[in-house]
Amino acid sequence: MTNPINIDEWTCPLPLRDHPAIVMGHGGGGKLSSELVEHLFLPAFQNDMLANLGDASVVGLNGTRLAMSTDSYVIQPLFFPGGNIGELAVHGTINDISMSGASPLYLSCGFILEEGLPLEQLGRIVDSMAAAARSAGVQLITGDTKVVDKGHGDGVYINTTGIGLIPDGVTIGPDQARPGDVVIASGTIGDHGMAVMSVREGLQFETEIVSDTAALNALVAQMINASSQIHVLRDPTRGGVASSLNEIAKASRVGIVIDENKVPVRPAVRSACEFLGMDPLFVANEGKLLAIVSEAEAEKVLAVMKANPLGVDAAVIGRVVDTHPGMLVAKTGIGGTRVVAMQIGEQLPRIC
Amino acid sequence: MTNPINIDEWTCPLPLRDHPAIVMGHGGGGKLSSELVEHLFLPAFQNDMLANLGDASVVGLNGTRLAMSTDSYVIQPLFFPGGNIGELAVHGTINDISMSGASPLYLSCGFILEEGLPLEQLGRIVDSMAAAARSAGVQLITGDTKVVDKGHGDGVYINTTGIGLIPDGVTIGPDQARPGDVVIASGTIGDHGMAVMSVREGLQFETEIVSDTAALNALVAQMINASSQIHVLRDPTRGGVASSLNEIAKASRVGIVIDENKVPVRPAVRSACEFLGMDPLFVANEGKLLAIVSEAEAEKVLAVMKANPLGVDAAVIGRVVDTHPGMLVAKTGIGGTRVVAMQIGEQLPRIC
Repeated sequence: MTNPINIDEWTCPLPLRDHPAIVMGHGGGGKLSSELVEHLFLPAFQNDMLANLGDASVVGLNGTRLAMSTDSYVIQPLFFPGGNIGELAVHGTINDISMSGASPLYLSCGFILEEGLPLEQLGRIVDSMAAAARSAGVQLITGDTKVVDKGHGDGVYINTTGIGLIPDGVTIGPDQARPGDVVIASGTIGDHGMAVMSVREGLQFETEIVSDTAALNALVAQMINASSQIHVLRDPTRGGVASSLNEIAKASRVGIVIDENKVPVRPAVRSACEFLGMDPLFVANEGKLLAIVSEAEAEKVLAVMKANPLGVDAAVIGRVVDTHPGMLVAKTGIGGTRVVAMQIGEQLPRIC
Repeated sequence: MTNPINIDEWTCPLPLRDHPAIVMGHGGGGKLSSELVEHLFLPAFQNDMLANLGDASVVGLNGTRLAMSTDSYVIQPLFFPGGNIGELAVHGTINDISMSGASPLYLSCGFILEEGLPLEQLGRIVDSMAAAARSAGVQLITGDTKVVDKGHGDGVYINTTGIGLIPDGVTIGPDQARPGDVVIASGTIGDHGMAVMSVREGLQFETEIVSDTAALNALVAQMINASSQIHVLRDPTRGGVASSLNEIAKASRVGIVIDENKVPVRPAVRSACEFLGMDPLFVANEGKLLAIVSEAEAEKVLAVMKANPLGVDAAVIGRVVDTHPGMLVAKTGIGGTRVVAMQIGEQLPRIC
């Protein structure tokens, strides 16, 4: 007599879509994250502003338009090539506000500290937050500190929440892309994710890969001054360029086609991705933006971007089309095309 | 030969004031918390708004005064008699904004979820956040979700950050108390802290003690409508009434005298505190406020408070004096007086 197969004992290496508990992928910026928002948060927090899934929410306040955005940072390790969790937390929220076209003005910061964290480390993190805010012209105006027991908390978690004002006449949002528009990337992609990956996994590459963490508010202000035809801005963080463009395609009900040959990727990042079997389109960035601009103004906007050190490698990487709405398609290096779908979970957890 | 005493092996049960690492007391709202803010955060984040140590920061924005406040919630357990971490996170930030005299308008929420958290628990927490916000007339407009590995994070940490507008003519702040003013408590103190304590330590009391978690913005609006002579508002959370009044005495450079016999404390809370050797003056509250009001208007403000269900037990508990500036003194039940100093750490960690 042979043993019957017992399905109850099977395990599945992929996160189950109908999992009754939180899995790492719920924080990865992919489909699982979207599903958590759509099926759990949105039904509870029903209102128009939350339903607009941009990086920042926009509300009216005494006749002005205020953008507000929040992000918690749980990156591991706390210190990585090119930055640390503190400046990342300042840059990330400044960038999320900037992507609505707003000028970021004020930030709050909430620290969750782990018992046993060396004060010297906290001091370095706080100093680099202050320097990042000063350099971006944004003020940290209020804060909070909690302490959790040793073993719970990974040293430091930081929440930053920011507010900014949207100038009159500016209408930028993930639902504003139109067929014919041009997709511009502000520089090389994948640097931040691969920099964190290299230290976390103890990998050594020939050229050190350094995070691109930076505040993009000044670059955005220059772009908005130059053109009134910037339709969408997005910083491709968790889930990378692929997830951001998928979300824009869905929100604007358009198709997007990118040309993989034109997407700027550093040779060291490309090699590391090939070595690890990762796709640079899905790797997180923290100092880059995607702009979707009318064709007529694309050259002008590109020139302004290239004149700023944070946009020197800017390039047109694709186009908005009226076919295949909601879908991102890539022309591959060998002349074919492929659908670039959102990932279910994530390539690399805890990248921001 | 006897062994010599080896001092290196001694351990100290109290947190060391010059500790080179974070200890639980740095999150307790006592002296250690203040020292961390004064010696580490303030020197880095130098600006006038942060230096004003009220619950919310106030900034000018297009001719209006905007209050902004942030808090991370790490309470254990997540569910406690009378509430859960979700509504606590909404009430807490609404209250911090209200204590500046502002009408809270919008909240952000950032979740740090632990891998393995049952979605059913998250759903209950999120539903109660939504209900708390709706009931207070405040909108949750933007959010963020991160996931950390199992074993790091205690289920859920929540950051809420809020903004609100201060009506013209209102000047309320911790530095506005003046000698002769009256100190009013809006109701019984210590309920929240002892409710959490009872479940955490598995204690059973004859009468169940239930958290007082509540949003105080409507009560504050009624008080401000009734009187222009409310000088200070404060919700005595971490560190309790004693820490709040100490901070006000310091910020306003006045003395404060309270009459212990007049401080409302539920009999069950008083018994539990006696049993555990705790002082109700230091126990956290989440739905109570302290108001410091000119003597001339105290009766009027008290009447308005008593007419609101959240202020029905309101009572005058003390007075602002021009002697012993920076110091809180209590008249004890047996007719003596004692100095009530801030605690170094905390009686009960992770209460909010």
